[in-house]
Amino acid sequence: MKNIVIIGAGNVATHLSVALYKANYNILQIYSRTQQAAKTLAKQVNSNFTNCFEEIDNSADLYIIAVLDSCIKQIVAKAVFRNKFIVHTAGSVPVTVLETISKNYGVFYPLQTFSKDVALDFSQVPICIEANNTNNETELYTIANNLNCKVYSINSKERKRLHLAAVFVNNFTNYLFTVAYNILDDKNLPFEILHALIKQTTEKATNNIPADVQTGPAKRGDIDTINKHLQMMNNNKDFQEVYKMLSNKLMEDL
Amino acid sequence: MKNIVIIGAGNVATHLSVALYKANYNILQIYSRTQQAAKTLAKQVNSNFTNCFEEIDNSADLYIIAVLDSCIKQIVAKAVFRNKFIVHTAGSVPVTVLETISKNYGVFYPLQTFSKDVALDFSQVPICIEANNTNNETELYTIANNLNCKVYSINSKERKRLHLAAVFVNNFTNYLFTVAYNILDDKNLPFEILHALIKQTTEKATNNIPADVQTGPAKRGDIDTINKHLQMMNNNKDFQEVYKMLSNKLMEDL
Repeated sequence: MKNIVIIGAGNVATHLSVALYKANYNILQIYSRTQQAAKTLAKQVNSNFTNCFEEIDNSADLYIIAVLDSCIKQIVAKAVFRNKFIVHTAGSVPVTVLETISKNYGVFYPLQTFSKDVALDFSQVPICIEANNTNNETELYTIANNLNCKVYSINSKERKRLHLAAVFVNNFTNYLFTVAYNILDDKNLPFEILHALIKQTTEKATNNIPADVQTGPAKRGDIDTINKHLQMMNNNKDFQEVYKMLSNKLMEDL
Repeated sequence: MKNIVIIGAGNVATHLSVALYKANYNILQIYSRTQQAAKTLAKQVNSNFTNCFEEIDNSADLYIIAVLDSCIKQIVAKAVFRNKFIVHTAGSVPVTVLETISKNYGVFYPLQTFSKDVALDFSQVPICIEANNTNNETELYTIANNLNCKVYSINSKERKRLHLAAVFVNNFTNYLFTVAYNILDDKNLPFEILHALIKQTTEKATNNIPADVQTGPAKRGDIDTINKHLQMMNNNKDFQEVYKMLSNKLMEDL
């Protein structure tokens, strides 16, 4: 399981390829429909690259499809690397999407948010694995172990659920950060002043059950403060709506 | 400015008193309407305590009212420590609430989330100060400096805005964590598996402008995944509503 072809050159593909390369795997080839993206990543992991599907190397031990969840079906439809060990890295796509093109398939889902330009210690990434049989699962387990990652055996249904939960803690949380950024920026107040609070919020929620450390006006049923806050957002109905809904949810739990 | 009386024995009062005590301030007395709370905190900072308003020591240099925002007016109404240097610690209450009881007043607002039982490095807490004159502002600045805190001069209007932004990044974010916790717990999946993602989300949002690192199905306009996610929450209309609203907000920005 030494020679690997990576399909994709986006955020996940980039971080995963680099981590594999550093762990002494041989990245044989990078495929991306964008030649420049393939080339950039290939350079980082000392591999070949192509933007032509027919040119994908057929001698690898493992093919990792690391593209957007919504693009996996497309890749599978035109897969030229049939009957190889093939895995995808998507949270919301069942493992069985690969069963038509190989007898050996699985999922290697890194439960993390990746940006090409943001450095990341890959050993801190939890890997959720699934495979069509025990042998293949063991292979994936070994790879995750060689990357020093925490590994979890997670089936497709569970993985979909994790992906949903991840949307709440990552995508939606970041949206709330954006709202706060804009509320401050509007009056030239630096977002930096909230950094310590953001860090402590995370610290508390990961060292406790989040519901146990909930605070704030809505949690206290402090209608007076809530109304003052709503009034301050009269110039932004979107922020007002979000504030109102989340406060109501918190108050329902009182 | 060495002798301090603390009004309150809750989360903020506790962390602030302990920090002041460690920085060699003399905590003269703790007041709380709950005798046990006053006693517990007093023990930690080697001070007297009382639950009787009339017994509040009138020889202190500084009186810090560290109670819930909604209780400050009440305290002011019956204040026996008139014409002393008096500050409050509330985000949403203007400094002028204190002008009827003293000529020397201000605000010492620690922009952080406090729980009595959660240890905290107080030097990481940003302090927002405001005072009725430059002398008093300098006094507060010195105290914050002695606690090794970052200090910001923030007027009452700005502080209200910071408090509003803090609700988004702390209270509402923690609510999203609670939703994620429940989504996983419902199927016996450990919340711990999301910890790395939560930490990286914070890391990215504090090292960048949050909007620049936004990802996820809604950001990509991936309606297919969004609909699948909504379906998975058919048994919880609250979570579904929150998901729908936040996804819509993110898609409006596309």
